[in-house]
Amino acid sequence: MGEFDLIARFFKRPARRAVLGVGDDCALLAPTPGMHLAFSTDSLIEGRHFVSTVNPIHLGHKALAVNLSDLAACGAQPRAFLLSLTLPRVDETWLAGFAQGLWALADAFDCELIGGDTTQGPLNINITVIGDVPAGQALLRSGAQVGDDIYVSGHLGDARIALEVFRGQLSVPESVFLTTRARMEQPTPRIALGMALRGLATSAADISDGLLGDLGHILQASQVGAELQTALAMPLMACAAHVALPRAQQLEYVLTGGDDYELVFTAPPHRRADVLAAGIASHTPVTCIGTVRAGQGVVLLDAQGRATPHRFTSFDHFA
Amino acid sequence: MGEFDLIARFFKRPARRAVLGVGDDCALLAPTPGMHLAFSTDSLIEGRHFVSTVNPIHLGHKALAVNLSDLAACGAQPRAFLLSLTLPRVDETWLAGFAQGLWALADAFDCELIGGDTTQGPLNINITVIGDVPAGQALLRSGAQVGDDIYVSGHLGDARIALEVFRGQLSVPESVFLTTRARMEQPTPRIALGMALRGLATSAADISDGLLGDLGHILQASQVGAELQTALAMPLMACAAHVALPRAQQLEYVLTGGDDYELVFTAPPHRRADVLAAGIASHTPVTCIGTVRAGQGVVLLDAQGRATPHRFTSFDHFA
Repeated sequence: MGEFDLIARFFKRPARRAVLGVGDDCALLAPTPGMHLAFSTDSLIEGRHFVSTVNPIHLGHKALAVNLSDLAACGAQPRAFLLSLTLPRVDETWLAGFAQGLWALADAFDCELIGGDTTQGPLNINITVIGDVPAGQALLRSGAQVGDDIYVSGHLGDARIALEVFRGQLSVPESVFLTTRARMEQPTPRIALGMALRGLATSAADISDGLLGDLGHILQASQVGAELQTALAMPLMACAAHVALPRAQQLEYVLTGGDDYELVFTAPPHRRADVLAAGIASHTPVTCIGTVRAGQGVVLLDAQGRATPHRFTSFDHFA
Repeated sequence: MGEFDLIARFFKRPARRAVLGVGDDCALLAPTPGMHLAFSTDSLIEGRHFVSTVNPIHLGHKALAVNLSDLAACGAQPRAFLLSLTLPRVDETWLAGFAQGLWALADAFDCELIGGDTTQGPLNINITVIGDVPAGQALLRSGAQVGDDIYVSGHLGDARIALEVFRGQLSVPESVFLTTRARMEQPTPRIALGMALRGLATSAADISDGLLGDLGHILQASQVGAELQTALAMPLMACAAHVALPRAQQLEYVLTGGDDYELVFTAPPHRRADVLAAGIASHTPVTCIGTVRAGQGVVLLDAQGRATPHRFTSFDHFA
């Protein structure tokens, strides 16, 4: 199968909202008046972001999910995406699975594949997503204010458990492995929550490299610091009750485990009821875990309100 | 140097026209009313699209140029781009060169870097470009009409000479090698010509995989065929006079040599003067080399107007 047959067979459908979809030199979109367009791009590399034995259906899901998660962090609604696929060879079974996972998530969020590129080389999956958000309502990293509450969506640290099992560092019951592996391989982009937080959250980011790292981006962009209540953060790991982890390690997984693709965001204390309502409306758990403070960096407080020294670091591709 | 330092040092500048540039979960653009947005994405892979010894300045140029060429083929004006860089390691000298070539071309076309992604893995450079074009004026592959003239911009086949020298298949004078190598490594996206052809060309495509292949995309999308005058096409190879090539091989390079990033387009015969004026206004040579015919496929005509059998094929990553 050649390059153009491959595209036609797996990745071409008639354009829907797009003025022009896959198959020309460019794709064309007609923006909606009054909306800003949001863009993000992410690559997944074999051996770095996924193991070679991953189910291609899950990989197709994840490749798009990590990008949609960036739109969620901005409060943007997904509109379209472009796929750049570098493949060592044409493996039709693999491609059929990958396309199945990709289309399922794309359809779930009504996000249209409008273009792409296919080349031969070491496996590398790049997606660029395009969303839109009413002008002036995008959630930015730079808006956190001293005194704001700090929230996270969903659960944290579960994907890290699966990673440690893959690394042979941890042994867990089969059911826990399956649950955490699904969290790692098929994350749920928090699009509905992000959109519900427009005009409500003062800042937001998605948690791809770990809570402390991604909250750190918010703090740096907003020129503020934060206090986190570890007693509030600990229950965020859904599987904690089923895994025999020392307390310090559980905390580490919650605070630094990557690949969760939840949102961390801030909102003023007087909007607490609205934040909880946004969580309910979007069917997404939200938990308040701390407060924005003047200064810089994150202070971890124990159950007695005492600062706990820590040396956690976040994921860095070249550190 | 870590991932975020790398981005800050080489790839971050204050946003210009963008509402939000590099450094948040998403970039934000405010589209211009009445314009459609055009998108294209292309990856460059080491060993596939460039040799490992390529000057990183040229590689930075080429990575953006091949994407801008797709905007040119649509008649779109470049606005912004996203860069996904997969690097085996942080090589500051290489990065400085790559960034220099990239920024020089980006600045020349006033195209703003608004976001990206940096990961570790086998070298893979992906760019997604965003341009705009007045609604309804984009040049498509599907508009060629029977009787239209077929044109190409600039020169064809020169990049192929450099490739054959690299492959050890051809020996040419040093000056010819330098010229053809520059054509291969630093192609000129034909943006000004593409914009000048709005409302004039009935179809267009850029020539990345070879004239016959890319013209073939136009013919297929437009459901028409073509006759090409080989006597008119032959002079398109600028270096022909300086390279001792058999006539058949010269024709092959012109018709199938990739990496030229010129435009192939069609226009009605009564607009010939306007097409030539568009070429002059955009400082781009344009040459009429044939005619759109009913049917399908390309017939090559010799100087006496006789059909010449040929078996040329175009580049396919997985053929």
